[in-house]
Amino acid sequence: MSANTLSLAEAEALVAGALERCRTSPANAALVARALVAAEADGLRGHGFSRVTSYAAQARAGKIDGFAEPSVTHVSPALARIDARHGFAYPALAAAEAALAEAAPIMGIACAAITRSHHCGVAGHPVERLADRGLVALLFANTPAAMAPWGGRTGVFGTNPIAFACPLPDEAPIVVDLSLSKVARGNILAARQKGEAIPEGWALDRDGRPTTDAAAALAGTMLPLGDAKGTALALMVELLAAGLTGANYAADASSFLDDRGAPPGTGQLLIALDPAMIGGKGALQHFRRLAEQIRSQEGARLPGARRIALRAKAKAEGLAIAPALRAEIEAL
Amino acid sequence: MSANTLSLAEAEALVAGALERCRTSPANAALVARALVAAEADGLRGHGFSRVTSYAAQARAGKIDGFAEPSVTHVSPALARIDARHGFAYPALAAAEAALAEAAPIMGIACAAITRSHHCGVAGHPVERLADRGLVALLFANTPAAMAPWGGRTGVFGTNPIAFACPLPDEAPIVVDLSLSKVARGNILAARQKGEAIPEGWALDRDGRPTTDAAAALAGTMLPLGDAKGTALALMVELLAAGLTGANYAADASSFLDDRGAPPGTGQLLIALDPAMIGGKGALQHFRRLAEQIRSQEGARLPGARRIALRAKAKAEGLAIAPALRAEIEAL
Repeated sequence: MSANTLSLAEAEALVAGALERCRTSPANAALVARALVAAEADGLRGHGFSRVTSYAAQARAGKIDGFAEPSVTHVSPALARIDARHGFAYPALAAAEAALAEAAPIMGIACAAITRSHHCGVAGHPVERLADRGLVALLFANTPAAMAPWGGRTGVFGTNPIAFACPLPDEAPIVVDLSLSKVARGNILAARQKGEAIPEGWALDRDGRPTTDAAAALAGTMLPLGDAKGTALALMVELLAAGLTGANYAADASSFLDDRGAPPGTGQLLIALDPAMIGGKGALQHFRRLAEQIRSQEGARLPGARRIALRAKAKAEGLAIAPALRAEIEAL
Repeated sequence: MSANTLSLAEAEALVAGALERCRTSPANAALVARALVAAEADGLRGHGFSRVTSYAAQARAGKIDGFAEPSVTHVSPALARIDARHGFAYPALAAAEAALAEAAPIMGIACAAITRSHHCGVAGHPVERLADRGLVALLFANTPAAMAPWGGRTGVFGTNPIAFACPLPDEAPIVVDLSLSKVARGNILAARQKGEAIPEGWALDRDGRPTTDAAAALAGTMLPLGDAKGTALALMVELLAAGLTGANYAADASSFLDDRGAPPGTGQLLIALDPAMIGGKGALQHFRRLAEQIRSQEGARLPGARRIALRAKAKAEGLAIAPALRAEIEAL
């Protein structure tokens, strides 16, 4: 591989090493590195290498406690409460996966509620891993304020991802992973950098009026997918991920991106369901039937298919990394 | 009250009486009547009186088994499997509510999976009743084919409602209730009747091309809210409501509206969560905090507020019913 291409193992070592030098335990650094490299491999760069320096700065400042070990309370055979203790989200998510993988096949359904957490990265990854174990899984996460209630002007919801995964027999799971804003904030940042206008329907200015000015949009709020219905879904996720878990709401959460202020303290709620216990022995075959109804249509595909193709390529050919970014990470 | 206005009790008696004359047991007729009158009271006419003659025709034809009693299997302390036995959905939904109200406060989370079901009516009502008992609740339902996979042209998803309710201290719960199509099919039917064009973005024709022709739209598929993200959500609901429960997928389900063909056999999945077990004693106060962040903004309101106002009015003033519709129901 060329100098600017790393194998996945090399990439993980690079990221973990950098975080270990920035007040993070080796175990936590390894989990963070796994998550960021997996995002990069899936082509989801916003959750990949680009996060390393920001995470490191937050760990150094104590905004993220890099040494925190999540505490798990088994409230019932179907419910685990997890306190991320203002550490990275990834150790708490790993604890949630372990709790759900154990409980869901016994109870049919199980829940893991994470509080005092941080950026969950690719929301589809924890649910995909649960689906790899044969479970159907849901993840709801809240994020710092980005969207106003319908008719309002002040952000009280994050872009609040919903992720869902469902196993299929003898192939990769179906994975749905979407945030509830119409477009990612990165698109507006890019427009401002280029001095371009943004399309109507992406954002509101600080007075709650539609705007095509990127700077005004960044000072205002993002618009949800599907208008009023989208804000209703964002409210639902806010209540599931932060309301139920006792975490900070979007409006009370500091940024995931910089090292200023108190920890964001957001939340994640995961639910896992056992297909065989709910639908009986033929459950996986029944899932496949719907997958076939979709794939048999010209032009249609299952969500998640693109990620899997990119992931295979990254595994075979390694990950490209910009020399400047690599140098920045190595210099940490 | 005037001749064309009925108290809620009179309206329920009218609807229940009509169904009892059409091969439906008194107990089931009472549950159906409660559901349709509650929909009408909330201003949701598409799920109200307008359904009576269609339900009655299906019960008479045996497409709905009006005498079916749902069977409940308690698979685990957190999971109930419910077979609606091709009866009305409402008795199965009532059984699901009872199972969840008992299990969720003990286990923290509980699931009820309904198969061989029918039209669930106002998806927000079962979850609202669970929230009235202090639980957070979700309902996912699939419906006959209406939407194509993104990039495809054949309907494989219903308009697939998602409903969510969350209790608040000393006031009515927050209720989110939305279907995943951009607009209700009724809007397209109305445009065709008036001979009007429909806006772009509502529907595709049978070849998967955008159309503004109402007739072509009715022969094609509905578009989801939020484009590709909306179809991803519809796929999620299809897998939760029909995939997990073993129910018929949208493409295999007959119409909820006419008496032709086999029973639709669709499914519903309900999940209830106990706020105190997950978030601790202060959970309801924490929910209120988000409600206040929304209500304090000029122009913003909590979803469900309009329904509650209409419901109070209907309780006080009764329900108007068109004389022709009333005569039709009485003649059944």
